[in-house]
Amino acid sequence: MYKITDGNTACADVAYLFSEIASIYPITPSSPMATTVDVLSHTDKTNLFNDKVKVVEMQSEAGAAGTMHGALLAGSLATTFTASQGLLLMIPNMYKIAGECLPAVIHVAARTIATHALSIFGDHSDVYATRATGFCMLASTNVEDANYLGAVAHLSAIKGSLPFLHFFDGFRTSHEVDKINEIEDKDLLKLVDYDKVNEFKERMLNVNSNVQKGMAENEDIYFQSVEARNSLYNEMPDIVNNYMQEINKLTGKDYKPFNYYGAKDATNVVVAMGSVCDTAKLVVSDLMGKGLKVGLIEVHLYRPFSVKYLLEVLPKTTKKIAVLDRTKEAGSMGEPLYLDICSALKNKDIKIVGGRYGLSSKNTTPAQIYSVYKMLAKELKDNFTIGIEDDVTNLSLPIYDYHLDIGAKGIKIFGFGSDGMVSTSKDIMKIVGEGTDNFVQSYNQYDSKKSGGVTICNLRISDKKINAPFYVTDPDIVVVTKEEYLFKFDMIDDIKEKGIFVINTIKGVDELNGYLPNKVKKIINDRHVRLYTIDAEKIATKVGIKGKISKIMEVIILNFINFPNVLEVVNHSIEKQFSTKGDEVINANKKAILEAMDNLVEVKTKLDVVEEKVNIKRNIFDEINARRGDELKVSDLMPFKDGTFPCGLAKNEKRKTSNMVPKWVSENCIQCGQCAIVCPHAVIRPIVSSDKNNGVPMIGKPEYNFEIVVSEADCTG
Amino acid sequence: MYKITDGNTACADVAYLFSEIASIYPITPSSPMATTVDVLSHTDKTNLFNDKVKVVEMQSEAGAAGTMHGALLAGSLATTFTASQGLLLMIPNMYKIAGECLPAVIHVAARTIATHALSIFGDHSDVYATRATGFCMLASTNVEDANYLGAVAHLSAIKGSLPFLHFFDGFRTSHEVDKINEIEDKDLLKLVDYDKVNEFKERMLNVNSNVQKGMAENEDIYFQSVEARNSLYNEMPDIVNNYMQEINKLTGKDYKPFNYYGAKDATNVVVAMGSVCDTAKLVVSDLMGKGLKVGLIEVHLYRPFSVKYLLEVLPKTTKKIAVLDRTKEAGSMGEPLYLDICSALKNKDIKIVGGRYGLSSKNTTPAQIYSVYKMLAKELKDNFTIGIEDDVTNLSLPIYDYHLDIGAKGIKIFGFGSDGMVSTSKDIMKIVGEGTDNFVQSYNQYDSKKSGGVTICNLRISDKKINAPFYVTDPDIVVVTKEEYLFKFDMIDDIKEKGIFVINTIKGVDELNGYLPNKVKKIINDRHVRLYTIDAEKIATKVGIKGKISKIMEVIILNFINFPNVLEVVNHSIEKQFSTKGDEVINANKKAILEAMDNLVEVKTKLDVVEEKVNIKRNIFDEINARRGDELKVSDLMPFKDGTFPCGLAKNEKRKTSNMVPKWVSENCIQCGQCAIVCPHAVIRPIVSSDKNNGVPMIGKPEYNFEIVVSEADCTG
Repeated sequence: MYKITDGNTACADVAYLFSEIASIYPITPSSPMATTVDVLSHTDKTNLFNDKVKVVEMQSEAGAAGTMHGALLAGSLATTFTASQGLLLMIPNMYKIAGECLPAVIHVAARTIATHALSIFGDHSDVYATRATGFCMLASTNVEDANYLGAVAHLSAIKGSLPFLHFFDGFRTSHEVDKINEIEDKDLLKLVDYDKVNEFKERMLNVNSNVQKGMAENEDIYFQSVEARNSLYNEMPDIVNNYMQEINKLTGKDYKPFNYYGAKDATNVVVAMGSVCDTAKLVVSDLMGKGLKVGLIEVHLYRPFSVKYLLEVLPKTTKKIAVLDRTKEAGSMGEPLYLDICSALKNKDIKIVGGRYGLSSKNTTPAQIYSVYKMLAKELKDNFTIGIEDDVTNLSLPIYDYHLDIGAKGIKIFGFGSDGMVSTSKDIMKIVGEGTDNFVQSYNQYDSKKSGGVTICNLRISDKKINAPFYVTDPDIVVVTKEEYLFKFDMIDDIKEKGIFVINTIKGVDELNGYLPNKVKKIINDRHVRLYTIDAEKIATKVGIKGKISKIMEVIILNFINFPNVLEVVNHSIEKQFSTKGDEVINANKKAILEAMDNLVEVKTKLDVVEEKVNIKRNIFDEINARRGDELKVSDLMPFKDGTFPCGLAKNEKRKTSNMVPKWVSENCIQCGQCAIVCPHAVIRPIVSSDKNNGVPMIGKPEYNFEIVVSEADCTG
Repeated sequence: MYKITDGNTACADVAYLFSEIASIYPITPSSPMATTVDVLSHTDKTNLFNDKVKVVEMQSEAGAAGTMHGALLAGSLATTFTASQGLLLMIPNMYKIAGECLPAVIHVAARTIATHALSIFGDHSDVYATRATGFCMLASTNVEDANYLGAVAHLSAIKGSLPFLHFFDGFRTSHEVDKINEIEDKDLLKLVDYDKVNEFKERMLNVNSNVQKGMAENEDIYFQSVEARNSLYNEMPDIVNNYMQEINKLTGKDYKPFNYYGAKDATNVVVAMGSVCDTAKLVVSDLMGKGLKVGLIEVHLYRPFSVKYLLEVLPKTTKKIAVLDRTKEAGSMGEPLYLDICSALKNKDIKIVGGRYGLSSKNTTPAQIYSVYKMLAKELKDNFTIGIEDDVTNLSLPIYDYHLDIGAKGIKIFGFGSDGMVSTSKDIMKIVGEGTDNFVQSYNQYDSKKSGGVTICNLRISDKKINAPFYVTDPDIVVVTKEEYLFKFDMIDDIKEKGIFVINTIKGVDELNGYLPNKVKKIINDRHVRLYTIDAEKIATKVGIKGKISKIMEVIILNFINFPNVLEVVNHSIEKQFSTKGDEVINANKKAILEAMDNLVEVKTKLDVVEEKVNIKRNIFDEINARRGDELKVSDLMPFKDGTFPCGLAKNEKRKTSNMVPKWVSENCIQCGQCAIVCPHAVIRPIVSSDKNNGVPMIGKPEYNFEIVVSEADCTG
C-alpha cells in the first residue's frame, strides 16, 4: 500500500519489526527513527515475536551502544539509530559486537562529523569513520530503499551472524517525504531464518549456557581467532544478495549488492553510493538518449566489499571510472570508496579517478554529475570536486549549462523558521499523495540557526515516481511568507515563464510598485510571472489565531495546483491536525481558509523597473546571510578554514523579520531590568550609568541609574 | 650520549620538551610515556619555554583528548599518550583538532583494539581506526626512531599547523630496551619555528583575539572550508622531510617520508610500517647477499600520504609488491596500507598483493618475511597471512626452514610473573650497555594473565647495533627460575650447541636424573648443553630475604656472559636499587650473590634418557597453557571465533607453581571460614553440610557444620 513517508520513518518501520530492544539516544538527523520506534511501541504494532519493542533511552550514544551490546550478549535482537559524533561514540562497542559476531543493526542517517565547524547536515564521513570496525554496511539511495534495504540489513544480520550498519543520506533521504510502497510486515516475517534466531539465542550468555565471553587473549591465539571469522564475511555477500532477490520478488525492484544503470557497452562509468545515485541515473538516462556510452555503479553492499558482485555488473567495455565519495579524508590520497575501487580493479585496464561531492548536504545537481561525465569524456582529472569553485587548489570541475526537465511540477516555499510552513508542505504532500494517483516529493532546507532562520520547502508533484534528490529548480510556484525576504534572497531567479509568485504581505497592491526590489520586478515583467499577494497575518488576527498562518497558505497553494475540492479537503485536514486543540481552534482555522480564498489578490498593474547600477562590495557574511553562501569560492573561505570567525556576527542575521518591536516607556519603568532579561535578542539594552562618571558604566558602584536603550527594529519575535 | 632506554621513555623525553600541557589517562602499553612525563615534571628538566610541563590526569581518554583540545584552543602546546580503546575515545576530538588546524601531538604505543577478545598486545588496528580524522601520522620502526621521529612530529605540527599522531609498536617497541643515542634538548630546540609558535598562540582564543571558534556551519560554506585546508596537507610532506633532514644531520641517520632498503634494481619489494621493517631489512640484506633483487619500502609518513616521496625511492625496476599490514579490517578487500599502495601505483605496471602479519603482538620472524619474498618470486597470493597456519580459508603462506644469524649473544630467561626477573633483565641490559661498548636489546614477553603467569625475557648482546624485533632463537643461555616449567614449556628446544642451561631448583644433582623430563635430557645430551643448577630460594631464605631471588639470578647470568668484575658491579647495582630499603636489605643481597657464586653447581653426570611414546590428545587449552598457542591452527580456533569459551578454565592455569601449600589443621579449626576468604585460589574450600542431609550442602539452614577441604597443591602464592 502506498504511504507518504520520509526515510527515517520508512526505516524505523522495519527496524521495529526485527528488534526486541532498541537502545536510543537522539541526534539529528536520526532522531525521528528512535522517536518512531518509541511511538510504535505504544501502539498495537508488534515485532517478529509478536511482542512490543523495549525502548531504552541512554545518557549518550556510548551508552546506547553499550546497552545494545549487552542486550545482544543476553540473546536479544537489538537495534539503535544514530549519526555523526553519535556514531563515533559507538566505535569501541562496534569492534566488540563485530568480533563477537552479534546480529546488531545500527541505522544511520549519515551526517557530517564536526571538524572546523559543527554541521548537522549530511555526508558519509561518519559512516566511513566506522568502516574498519568489521560491521557489514548497506547503503540506501532513497526513501523506498530505507524501507526495503533496512529489512535486508536485519534479515542478513540474523542469517549471517554479523552486525550491520544500514545508512542513507541525512536530511536528503532521512527527511525527504516521498510516496512509497512499504512491504507488509507479514511478508517480511516469512523471510526470517528462525533457526538462526534460535541458534543466536542459545549461544548467548544465560544460566544454562555455561560459557564466558569477552575474555582477554594473548599473542598466541588472537590472530588465529580473527582469521577464523573470515568465512562469515566470505558468505555474507551471497546472503545479502539472496535477501535482495526475495525483496525484489515482493516489490518488483532489482536490488543487487552493486546495481548497474546505463549503457550495456558503456566506456565511462561513475561509481557512487547514497542519494546521489538517483541524480546520476537521471543524467545517465539523458546522456544515453544522446547516444553516449555512460553508466553508473550504485553501491548498496559496501562491506563486505564483494569484487565478484562488482565485476558481475560492471560492463566489460569500461575504460574510465570516476568514483564519487561524499566525504573528505584529509591527508589521504583519495577517499574510501575510491581506494576500494582502485584495489578491486587493480588488474583491469581501466583508468580510475576519484572525486568529492555533497559535503555537509551541499546540493548535488544533475549539472554537477554531467560535469563528471564530461570530464571522463575529455581529460581525466583526479581528486576532483564538484559543487564548489575551488580557485585555490583548483580541484573543482568546470560547471556547464546543463538542465534536466524531470517532468514534475515544482513548488518552492520560503518560510520563516517555526512559522509552520514545513508542516504545511508535509500536509500538502499527504493530501496530494494520498488523494490522487500522483507521486509527490518534498525536501525542506532547514537552517541550523534554528527558529527564526529561513526554511525553504522544495515540493514536486508528478504522475511518475520522483527520484530527484536535489533542490527544485525552475519552479512553477514560489511562495514567500515574509516580505522582508524579497530584499534578502534571490527567490524567483529561476521561476518558470508564467510561473506563480505568492507573497504574504501587509502591503497593498498599490504600494507594491514602490516596495518591490527592481530586480524582482524585472523578473516578474520579463517572465510574465503571475504575482499574487495575501495578508495572511491580518486574516489570522481577525479570526482569532494570531500568527498562525500555515493553513491559510496551505489552502492557497493547493488551490494553485488545482487540487479538487480544496476547501473541503483542507477543512478535513484542519479537523485532523487540531483534533486535540478544541473546536474553537478548528473553527477559526476553517474561517481563515475561507477568508484566504477571498482575500488573495492578483497584481495586474504594470510594475515599473528602474535600472540600477549595483556595485556594492559585500563580505562573505553578507553573502551567507543572503543565502548565496553556495556561490562562495574556496579562496573566500581561506581565512576561516580552521573555523575561526570574528565575534559579533549574529547581529547581522535574521534582521527585520518581526512585525513588531518592543518599546521602552520611560514613565512606566521601575528600573527592574527584567525587560532586558526577557528579550532574547537584546533589543532592549539596559546600561548601568553614573552621573558622577559622565554616563560611563560603573558597575559595582552603588550610585547608578539604569538607562534603557531600544535598538533598531531587530526583534525576531 | 648513549642511553639504555625503551621506546616509551625515548618518546616521552621529546614529548616533554615540546609540550606545555600533557593531559593523560593510563592505558597499556602507553602508560609509561605519561608516567615519564609526569616524573620529569618533578625534575629540573624544562620544556621549550624553559618551563615545566603541566600534567593533568583525566577521568578517561575522552577527557584527556578534550583537555588537550581545550588547551590548544587556549594557545598551549598540548600532548597526550594512548593506545587501543583509549585512542578510539579520542576520535571525536581528533576530527575537531584536525579541522581546527591545531598542532596537537598524540604519541601512540599501537595496540590491538578489543574485538572477540580484549588484547593488551600490539598491532596497528587502533592507529588505522583514526586514519580518517585528518591527523598527520608518523610511524617509528624502533626505539631510536621513537626519540628522533617523535621530535619530527612535534616540530612539524608546529611548523605546518596540523596535528600529528606519532606511533610505534606497542610492547615490541614501547617496551623494548635498547641502547640508543638520544638527541640533546638544546640541539632540538634550535629547530623550533618560534614564529609559528607565536602565530599559533595569537590566533587562539584569548581576551584580545575577539574571535570565536567551533561554530555551526550550514551546507552553503562547509565544503569550501574543508577544501580550503588542502594546502596545509599539500605542504606537510615537505615540512616533515625537511625536519627529517635536520635530524639526519644531528644523528647521521637517513630518514625520509619513505625509506628504501635493498637492491637498486629490485623487482620484488615489500612495503611495511612499524617494527617489522627492521626484521625485513635483515632478510633483505641476507637475500641481497644471495644475489636476489629484493627491497623494502619502510613507511614513516603515513599521512599525508605522499605519492611523490614514495616514487622518489621506489626502484623503477619494481615488478611485484607485497604490502604488509599489521591489522585485519574484516569486510574490506584488503588492509589500509595495501589499499593506499594500490591507489598510489594505479597507473604503474606493478602487480600488488596485500597480507597481514603480527596481529596482537604475534611474533614476526625473519622466516615469515622470507616466505613473503619467496611468494613474490614464485606465484602471487593475495590477501595472505604470515605467522599462523590458516587451514580453513587457506590464506597463510607456507613457512620455510630459514634461519638468520644476527651475530648477537642470545639469552632467554623464563621467570615467574612478579619474581623480579624482568627487572633483573633490565638491570643486566643497563650494566652491559653502559659498562661496555656493546649494544644490548631486551624484550620481555608478558602474560596478560598478570602476576603468576610466565614471563620470558629475550636478551641480546652484540658489538653491533641490534635491530631484531623478534624473539631470541638459538639462545646461548637459557635460565629458568621455576623447575615446574620444565614439564610445561619447551624451553631449550632451540638452545645452541654447547649452550648453557641454568635451573633454579631445590633438587640435588643426584635427583635430576629422575626428575628431568626425557625430552629435556635428550636435548641436553644431544647438544652437549652445559647444565647448571642453583637453589636460589634456599640462599635467599638463608640470608634473610626469603623469596627475593632476582639479584642471585642476575649475578649468575652476568657471570655466564663473562662480564668483568661481576661481584663488584652487582654490589654497586644492589646499592643503587635498594638505596631506599636500608642497609639490612643491601647487605643481605650482597651476601646472597656471594653465596650464589659458591652454590652454582655444574651437572656433569650423564643423564639417562628413556624413549617415550607420547601420544596424548590435548585440547587447545592444554596447548595454550603449555605456551604452544602459537602453533594452533585457525581450525582449532573456529569454535571460539566469537570469543565464547567454556567456563572453568582458570583452574588449569598456573598449576603447581608454589613451593608451599596451605594445610587445614582440624584441631585448630574454629569453623570461622576465613581461611577460604583469604586464599585467592580456592585451595582451601569450606563446604556447608548437614548431617541430616547426608552431607549435601544445605545453605540457609541453621543445622550445619563446616567441612574444610584442601585441594591439590595448586596454590600460587
